[in-house]
Amino acid sequence: MNNSEILRQLTDILEQRKGAAADSSYVASLYDKGLDAILKKVGEEATETVMAAKDAVHGTAGKDKLVYEVADLWFHTMVLLASQDLSADDVLDELARRFGVSGHDEKAAR
Amino acid sequence: MNNSEILRQLTDILEQRKGAAADSSYVASLYDKGLDAILKKVGEEATETVMAAKDAVHGTAGKDKLVYEVADLWFHTMVLLASQDLSADDVLDELARRFGVSGHDEKAAR
Amino acid sequence: MNNSEILRQLTDILEQRKGAAADSSYVASLYDKGLDAILKKVGEEATETVMAAKDAVHGTAGKDKLVYEVADLWFHTMVLLASQDLSADDVLDELARRFGVSGHDEKAAR
Amino acid sequence: MNNSEILRQLTDILEQRKGAAADSSYVASLYDKGLDAILKKVGEEATETVMAAKDAVHGTAGKDKLVYEVADLWFHTMVLLASQDLSADDVLDELARRFGVSGHDEKAAR
Repeated sequence: MNNSEILRQLTDILEQRKGAAADSSYVASLYDKGLDAILKKVGEEATETVMAAKDAVHGTAGKDKLVYEVADLWFHTMVLLASQDLSADDVLDELARRFGVSGHDEKAAR
Repeated sequence: MNNSEILRQLTDILEQRKGAAADSSYVASLYDKGLDAILKKVGEEATETVMAAKDAVHGTAGKDKLVYEVADLWFHTMVLLASQDLSADDVLDELARRFGVSGHDEKAAR
Repeated sequence: MNNSEILRQLTDILEQRKGAAADSSYVASLYDKGLDAILKKVGEEATETVMAAKDAVHGTAGKDKLVYEVADLWFHTMVLLASQDLSADDVLDELARRFGVSGHDEKAAR
Repeated sequence: MNNSEILRQLTDILEQRKGAAADSSYVASLYDKGLDAILKKVGEEATETVMAAKDAVHGTAGKDKLVYEVADLWFHTMVLLASQDLSADDVLDELARRFGVSGHDEKAAR
């Protein structure tokens, strides 16, 4: 399976919704509400990730719940990035830089 | 540029460090400290992301700071996932599911 | 001015609402939704406190906004405490213990 | 028991430490590090409160742990308030205002 393209496709979707009417989609409504609404969601999803992890180790919720909450958290950080004209690519570049793998080297090494 | 592989490479690194001595690396020390230490970092990095976003819009810090903090947040959620025998792939699958793009379709559509 | 009694009065209110119908008040609805809903609010209000502090120092919001958000945070931690049959008194006792002032000594020292 | 004075005493302590050398106490070191360090602690303690609540209901930690973490959270919000020349009294006033009890009425009603 290859899901390497999903972050790029999601980035495209987030860009497309920038010009849309506030009531046309959830993301458009978040952009319209502004930065504080987006940041509140980031804080909320981080809290839900912590709760889901605790429930997973205590056996009161499945690991799928944890995956679901991390996906929510990543998604809302991507909305935050898009709102500042940044994207997941910037984050992946930063992670690549830290772990000594440039996008270029990486391509060559595949 | 293609940095789609960085999450997979990082996943491999996080797996490799599972068997390592606690003092051999930062990640190994986090595994050794246990879930609470990892969750504290997730909460802390989410807070720092919020702060960096505020500083970016107020012009008191650059957008690179925001990227840096989101990278920290994603990294620590990946440590959390690895600690539960999950990975970024599970999160990407969930995002693909939500946005109607299966790994398989995605591959065919590139 | 003396507002030392407000935490106790608020504690009483939070206790009274325990038996109330879910739709009778905000607090009753939080109890009804359960622990996760209360914890989400704690995480959300902590995030809003961080945002308000940043806005206060950047001059884009007044200090009254910060006070408002900390009040929201304290209030929701009191709902959390009440839901676990604890109260602000337990927190004040713990703070008194740390700072070397017992309730008894304190009374004598006023 | 009366512990209504602890917040005022703690407020006094937090004020006194404002002029102190950074290495003279934990609070003085937080002031010296600045707002971001204080806000990180607020975010961290909120996360620990959520974790402690989950552990309490799952029976893997006592309720005293939850009280301890809420005390940590309140304490660090008080350091935040002090750093902005505000105090717990401002928060109590706001809570009194919301719940229809002015400091004055309250005094009369005791």
